Amino acid sequence: MPRLSRSFFVQTLGLTAFMLSATAIAQTPAPPATATPADAALRAAALEVFSAIPTTPPTVREQPVSPAMAELGKMLFFEPRLSRSHIITCNTCHSLSTGGSDNIPTSIGHGFMRGPRNAPTVYNAVFNAAQFWDGRAANLREQAKGPVQASVEMNSTPERVVQTLNSIPEYVAAFRTAFPAAGGNAVSFDNMALAIESFEATLITPNAPFDRYLNGDNAALTAEQKTGLHLFMERGCSTCHSGVNLGGQAYFPFGVAERPGARILPDSDKGRFAVTQTEGDEFAFRAGPLRNIALTAPYFHSGQVWDLREAVAIMGSSQLGIQLSDADATAITAFLNALTAPMPTVTMPELPPSTATTPRPE
Amino acid sequence: MPRLSRSFFVQTLGLTAFMLSATAIAQTPAPPATATPADAALRAAALEVFSAIPTTPPTVREQPVSPAMAELGKMLFFEPRLSRSHIITCNTCHSLSTGGSDNIPTSIGHGFMRGPRNAPTVYNAVFNAAQFWDGRAANLREQAKGPVQASVEMNSTPERVVQTLNSIPEYVAAFRTAFPAAGGNAVSFDNMALAIESFEATLITPNAPFDRYLNGDNAALTAEQKTGLHLFMERGCSTCHSGVNLGGQAYFPFGVAERPGARILPDSDKGRFAVTQTEGDEFAFRAGPLRNIALTAPYFHSGQVWDLREAVAIMGSSQLGIQLSDADATAITAFLNALTAPMPTVTMPELPPSTATTPRPE
Repeated sequence: MPRLSRSFFVQTLGLTAFMLSATAIAQTPAPPATATPADAALRAAALEVFSAIPTTPPTVREQPVSPAMAELGKMLFFEPRLSRSHIITCNTCHSLSTGGSDNIPTSIGHGFMRGPRNAPTVYNAVFNAAQFWDGRAANLREQAKGPVQASVEMNSTPERVVQTLNSIPEYVAAFRTAFPAAGGNAVSFDNMALAIESFEATLITPNAPFDRYLNGDNAALTAEQKTGLHLFMERGCSTCHSGVNLGGQAYFPFGVAERPGARILPDSDKGRFAVTQTEGDEFAFRAGPLRNIALTAPYFHSGQVWDLREAVAIMGSSQLGIQLSDADATAITAFLNALTAPMPTVTMPELPPSTATTPRPE
Repeated sequence: MPRLSRSFFVQTLGLTAFMLSATAIAQTPAPPATATPADAALRAAALEVFSAIPTTPPTVREQPVSPAMAELGKMLFFEPRLSRSHIITCNTCHSLSTGGSDNIPTSIGHGFMRGPRNAPTVYNAVFNAAQFWDGRAANLREQAKGPVQASVEMNSTPERVVQTLNSIPEYVAAFRTAFPAAGGNAVSFDNMALAIESFEATLITPNAPFDRYLNGDNAALTAEQKTGLHLFMERGCSTCHSGVNLGGQAYFPFGVAERPGARILPDSDKGRFAVTQTEGDEFAFRAGPLRNIALTAPYFHSGQVWDLREAVAIMGSSQLGIQLSDADATAITAFLNALTAPMPTVTMPELPPSTATTPRPE
């Protein structure tokens, strides 16, 4: 991959916000080893579209994350008794060890049944504008209630969950600590969801090379990754994949330029149409958030594409109507690899034992 | 529960090793708030039969645990790609959050198929004389190879495991670091098992009230738990449930005094007989290790008994031929609760992503 010249950016970036004037370039002193003016322009352009992940969890429900709720939420995230079988947890499909997802085409749940879609990562999910591929949950607390009840996932009910948690004194105490205003009503399905949301808000990955680059470290990205970042914006990827998560903000029809094959976009799943019943939403899905994307193959809602470079090429043809050159697809993929960050340290929770009144696994 | 008197022990302990002579008692000064002579006798008796869990991991293969092997072993313990489906890990059935077991009657594995027996805890398993309910694996490295291949568990093969691990550069590097003498052959099914064994050797729980009591803290057990400890030895439980794990050392026919019902001891599972083909081993099972037993319901190899006190009563009738009084069963159960210890802190590992040559989930 050739080193990027300043003129390359001037010629091709195509975003007025950071077009450098010829005068400005003429005034720039001889560049150091790292091409500072190019980095400055590229960074400025990127900061118009993206932002770095903050180093501390965002507010949830307009409050800082409550440590008591987050600690309870961590227990619940790893709690198999939220499932009817007592063997499926949130972490089963959103494994914190494997990028916050399960790395299989579509998730496997109760009875080894397959769900209809690929599990999105839980990491940084707090930054998404809505949850699920079709955005049917406005936030993580709404989302958390879905899989617990879905027959192909955890296959439980709110009543069973509340009965389970109420049967275990340590949980009753933890709910009372986390929700002191609720008194004797602290254990509830709603509060379960609030606690899980609070824990999930702490699952952010702020230190990717891309974050370090946005924050001023020119050496955080390789030359190829910088080219990829430029192309990602210039070719139009960032039109949908923007913001802190490079996606997760809005819905777009999959195949707007050229419909991919039925393996990748099966007729049976009409995406957001099922939520809105609006014709324009047929086959529309939430633009996938791309943070840690290299860790969360296979790709798309159908989970049929295992190779990230192939996924990039498919996006080019299906969404942008262009055939990305091999070099361009490779550079964009290199940039996407710069979105991989160290995961937060999570210690396994110690879960309290069942009692005589705890519902048994079924 | 009445406070134990010294004479209670003298009258009932029935183990010559710590019978106090009348003279010795007469010479003892007035007891302090905690009945020291009784504690001394009880502790001495207990130390003849049991021992405290050490605070550092035992040697494995006559060597101190290798940190590099243990770290690799932790990754493998949480590695879903050891299973054919890519969703089942060692931790699925031996969850470190729930006492090292899965808290269901018999384990659920590939295809949601049920295995034949209740999953034993992985905590302190390194102290067992052999592994599995029938002792068919001499140690943890042999044990680790079983579930990976069992069709109703992870349903993989050694070849598939080696192909998977070799396809992921981070694993190749971790195996080479852990097994430097093996060079290019570091990635192997045997070494996978050695690494898992090394990690599991660190999964010890040294700080139960019973350990603290054995180590000299008279206040670590309640009066009822001390009565229970005494009864546990005096009634004969400790004949089989001895050693550091209070079990896990030898095999005994289940129902030697009175055969429990077919729900608890089904005809179809002849226990150790399947290993030795020796008539005397029909329905013989390894005496269950009782560490953290309050966390690992349901009980016995068939996993049909949920209540610990009921399990104690069944053991009394089936193995000792006695009907334990309610008070005795309650006291023994209280003692068993004193075997619950804090779990070691385990941080979730970060697992490396698959590559183009990694076998896909099936």
